[in-house]
Amino acid sequence: MTHPYEEYPLHPIGHIRSPLRTLDEAPRQGSEGAPDAWLEVDPSFARGLSRIRTGDAVIVVTWLHRANRDLLEVHPRGDPETPLTGVFATRSPHRPNPLGLHRVTVREISGARLRIGPIEAIDGTPVVDIKAVLGDCGDA
Amino acid sequence: MTHPYEEYPLHPIGHIRSPLRTLDEAPRQGSEGAPDAWLEVDPSFARGLSRIRTGDAVIVVTWLHRANRDLLEVHPRGDPETPLTGVFATRSPHRPNPLGLHRVTVREISGARLRIGPIEAIDGTPVVDIKAVLGDCGDA
Repeated sequence: MTHPYEEYPLHPIGHIRSPLRTLDEAPRQGSEGAPDAWLEVDPSFARGLSRIRTGDAVIVVTWLHRANRDLLEVHPRGDPETPLTGVFATRSPHRPNPLGLHRVTVREISGARLRIGPIEAIDGTPVVDIKAVLGDCGDA
Repeated sequence: MTHPYEEYPLHPIGHIRSPLRTLDEAPRQGSEGAPDAWLEVDPSFARGLSRIRTGDAVIVVTWLHRANRDLLEVHPRGDPETPLTGVFATRSPHRPNPLGLHRVTVREISGARLRIGPIEAIDGTPVVDIKAVLGDCGDA
């Protein structure tokens, strides 16, 4: 059903510039003490930011380039005491297509750069999409 | 900053099987009267589903294969009366990397098939990820 040759190319629209330099420094979720970061959007995509305003809540979608795409089960939160769990039942970065979802607030806008946070993604993480939050809960 | 050759390959983990056959039939959001559908996960990824249970809320990430990747501004909800808005400030399917986020409930599990809903994705839509919802709001 899924053909081995079926493949869709993601092209980053920008990158995260963060004081977090290593995975060891990064909290597991943005809500767990993560810092703010700059999202530097490539100038060729800058028009896609029009009407984003300071204070908006947005969903940033990253490509977790340091993840392991071959893992299908993990111990949640890296705790060996927790039972092995399918990656699709978790928020582990390790999964066949390592996409990260980050609900953040836009703190500042400077040209094609957005200061956003809190976000646990490390410096250099590719960003592949930004989406409006729908409703109170972001419904995603 | 974004190198033209920087590219990450997405491989579908499964596909949507839905009574919605055309974009014209599909509501704009799952919450706008969308039906349930089957998510058929490729058997090679079935282990990634372990510990998903009927009744769970999950986020399904799709590749909106019928979208236009060249659009950077749209009239939200296709209404020509609304001002042109950057796609990153909207939930338009048209965007450089046309990923769809769908918060759904797992209605039924049958092997590597999950009955989920409500979901506005049309029949044949590739699925690239499934994630647990964190907290009351899914925080994504």
